[in-house]
Amino acid sequence: QIDSARLWGAIHETAQFGATPKGGVRRLTLSAEDKQVRDWFRKACEDAGLEVQVDALGSMFGLRKGRDMSKPPIGVGSHLDTQPTGGKYDGVLGTLAALEMVRTLNDAGIETELPICICNWTNEEGSRFAPAMMASAAYVGDFTTDDILSRKDAEGVTVAQALDTIGYRGDAPVGRQKFTSFVELHIEQGPILEAENKTIGVVDSGQGVLWYDGKITGFESHAGSTPMPLRRDALATLSEIVLAMESIAKKHGPKAVGTIGEAVIAAPSRNVIPGEIAFTVDCRSADAAIMDALDRDLRAAVSEIAAKRKVEVQLDLVWRKAPTHFDPKLVDAVENAAKQLGYSHRRITSGAGHDACNLNTVMPAAMVFVPCKDGISHNELEDAKQTDCAAGANVLMHTVLALAGV
Amino acid sequence: QIDSARLWGAIHETAQFGATPKGGVRRLTLSAEDKQVRDWFRKACEDAGLEVQVDALGSMFGLRKGRDMSKPPIGVGSHLDTQPTGGKYDGVLGTLAALEMVRTLNDAGIETELPICICNWTNEEGSRFAPAMMASAAYVGDFTTDDILSRKDAEGVTVAQALDTIGYRGDAPVGRQKFTSFVELHIEQGPILEAENKTIGVVDSGQGVLWYDGKITGFESHAGSTPMPLRRDALATLSEIVLAMESIAKKHGPKAVGTIGEAVIAAPSRNVIPGEIAFTVDCRSADAAIMDALDRDLRAAVSEIAAKRKVEVQLDLVWRKAPTHFDPKLVDAVENAAKQLGYSHRRITSGAGHDACNLNTVMPAAMVFVPCKDGISHNELEDAKQTDCAAGANVLMHTVLALAGV
Ligand SMILES: NC(=O)NCCC(=O)O
Ligand SMILES: NC(=O)NCCC(=O)O
Repeated sequence: QIDSARLWGAIHETAQFGATPKGGVRRLTLSAEDKQVRDWFRKACEDAGLEVQVDALGSMFGLRKGRDMSKPPIGVGSHLDTQPTGGKYDGVLGTLAALEMVRTLNDAGIETELPICICNWTNEEGSRFAPAMMASAAYVGDFTTDDILSRKDAEGVTVAQALDTIGYRGDAPVGRQKFTSFVELHIEQGPILEAENKTIGVVDSGQGVLWYDGKITGFESHAGSTPMPLRRDALATLSEIVLAMESIAKKHGPKAVGTIGEAVIAAPSRNVIPGEIAFTVDCRSADAAIMDALDRDLRAAVSEIAAKRKVEVQLDLVWRKAPTHFDPKLVDAVENAAKQLGYSHRRITSGAGHDACNLNTVMPAAMVFVPCKDGISHNELEDAKQTDCAAGANVLMHTVLALAGV
Repeated sequence: QIDSARLWGAIHETAQFGATPKGGVRRLTLSAEDKQVRDWFRKACEDAGLEVQVDALGSMFGLRKGRDMSKPPIGVGSHLDTQPTGGKYDGVLGTLAALEMVRTLNDAGIETELPICICNWTNEEGSRFAPAMMASAAYVGDFTTDDILSRKDAEGVTVAQALDTIGYRGDAPVGRQKFTSFVELHIEQGPILEAENKTIGVVDSGQGVLWYDGKITGFESHAGSTPMPLRRDALATLSEIVLAMESIAKKHGPKAVGTIGEAVIAAPSRNVIPGEIAFTVDCRSADAAIMDALDRDLRAAVSEIAAKRKVEVQLDLVWRKAPTHFDPKLVDAVENAAKQLGYSHRRITSGAGHDACNLNTVMPAAMVFVPCKDGISHNELEDAKQTDCAAGANVLMHTVLALAGV
């Protein structure tokens, strides 16, 4: 059993890096706050006897030797970046539970057959730079390192510049650190486990994701003197797109979601009809056919709205992640660990994307979920119980021990 | 007749202050660019022999003596500030036509019975600070000078600070400069004169204005893992409000307009359901009963939408300007001038607000409109013909001469 108090202490100690007045965390990837938590994590890994490597995209790997160093390690971990108004657990729990596992094994003097490597993946959140799960996507070859290094944030800062600014552009080429398999613990970020009173979610699948960049070009005009029928209002156009996305997603019942998360009017003024708006779309399903339908229906709706309102709407797909089906043997391993430890559990689909979803495309991967309060995440009020976090960390450790061999 | 080429030259010379790449002007009130045009205007007034005064809100008054200095002058002018992406004519034409009139009278050695005072009113546009027509509103006593001085822009800079920064907080108390009456020339900013092929609009009325500040408080949540029915999406809420405002305005046919010009998501991120949005509403009618209906219907729609979506919507009325009915004698004077000069003309309602609308509440006021291309205004593409601008300036001068007496 891991040390629940020590894990809880680490979560709350690191929550100070980017702490917000409302009890959340603002720790955008590769920001000054991210550097703080990275420095903390590096030192904690070194104190635990791990050999730390940083790759060219800033992902951090802490290696604990095994008896058999001829095989790649079991990877464990998650991410330490957060949303602009994020919580204390998303990503953090999985990364610090991996650290807690190492500390527990050290204290108990447990050697494993295979080595273990604990990971902090760069930019899982995707708010500062697109796509989300950026570094693990490059790791599995979905994007080249150079492509990712050139991605820009809203201020025009590239990933390369941001890495250099905080001193986390490492020497290791992306992908050099191999893994035998990968396991990630995370809060559910949804309402199911709590509603069904289950402690452990055995994640067997994950939703696919479609991300779009949109731009509406209507016509700026005087709010007082432009008759309603002559308007080409970019905000009224966006409004119809938002509601269309909502009803398209609802049409598929619980099997799809769709969100417009960003919308920026180009030169806003109270008495000017908005002429230009940039926006983003995020829509998802665990079913590949539904993902195709979402894309088709969204594009059709946008075309119809644009034609009706005589505006131009550009809609560019910037990221497509297929639905994830986690490795059945690893999923069983997670389930066995939960069973052996006596925790209530159920199979579950991840609504969010995770680095494990990327890694699963090139190695066996699986995930462990624990409940979070009211299913709330990507919100400063995100909350989780200490006992649930500890239970998840125990399932994680026992899964890893089963995979690494004692 | 005024000097058409000199007027045209002045318009294009001042358009350099804040010129945008797309041929428009960005000269927000009390900005560095506004200081440039104010300095230019002050020097031009002084060169024309006018005595320049600046009041405590930065409005500029250039006095040309008359034979009878016991009576207050005839006021003439408009404003030199623009929208963030504004045009070269809105406000500028009326202010520089007043200057051109003085230059013409000087050249011709014409003395008037009453003095004439040409004006540049501070913050007519209302984009940086609310309300629009700010200084003339204070002039007529709708707001106290101290209240206006404390108004803040989006960056938190007060009117007082902005005035001090550019050195245009004048000595003259607001309201000290009296006028016998006031006449303002402006581009129509709407499509009617051009469509009907009329050169002069004899403005007899103006729409009333309602401005609101709105705030939606929904709940930030994960875009991937939050089921559609559990969302409290601030942007979907705004979308329904935008479309409701549109249909409420349309219900009144050509007699009302309604616009959401600003909307800012608090902590935007692609994969976060928007939790908080600040927005503004501008709605108008020339009919006081319809204004009441707009307010009632908007509030009812907002309440219904908020209840349905389980979000909070705050809607604060920040400005209410009653419809304007210009002084019938002055309107006749404008019409007579147009007739005598042989310009085609029609009576017209102003869709936009103007300083003359404020001034009309405490003195006889009237306005002259000239066509603008496609009715476009509050847009960098705003355009007007030199002959129309000159025609408007001639009607303005002849109206003022009739009022001031030669
Ligand atoms: N786990 C998590 O919140 N990931 C962010 C990427 C996404 O799913 O949008
Ligand atoms: N004339 C003009 O564009 N005024 C701005 C104030 C308004 O009508 O919104």
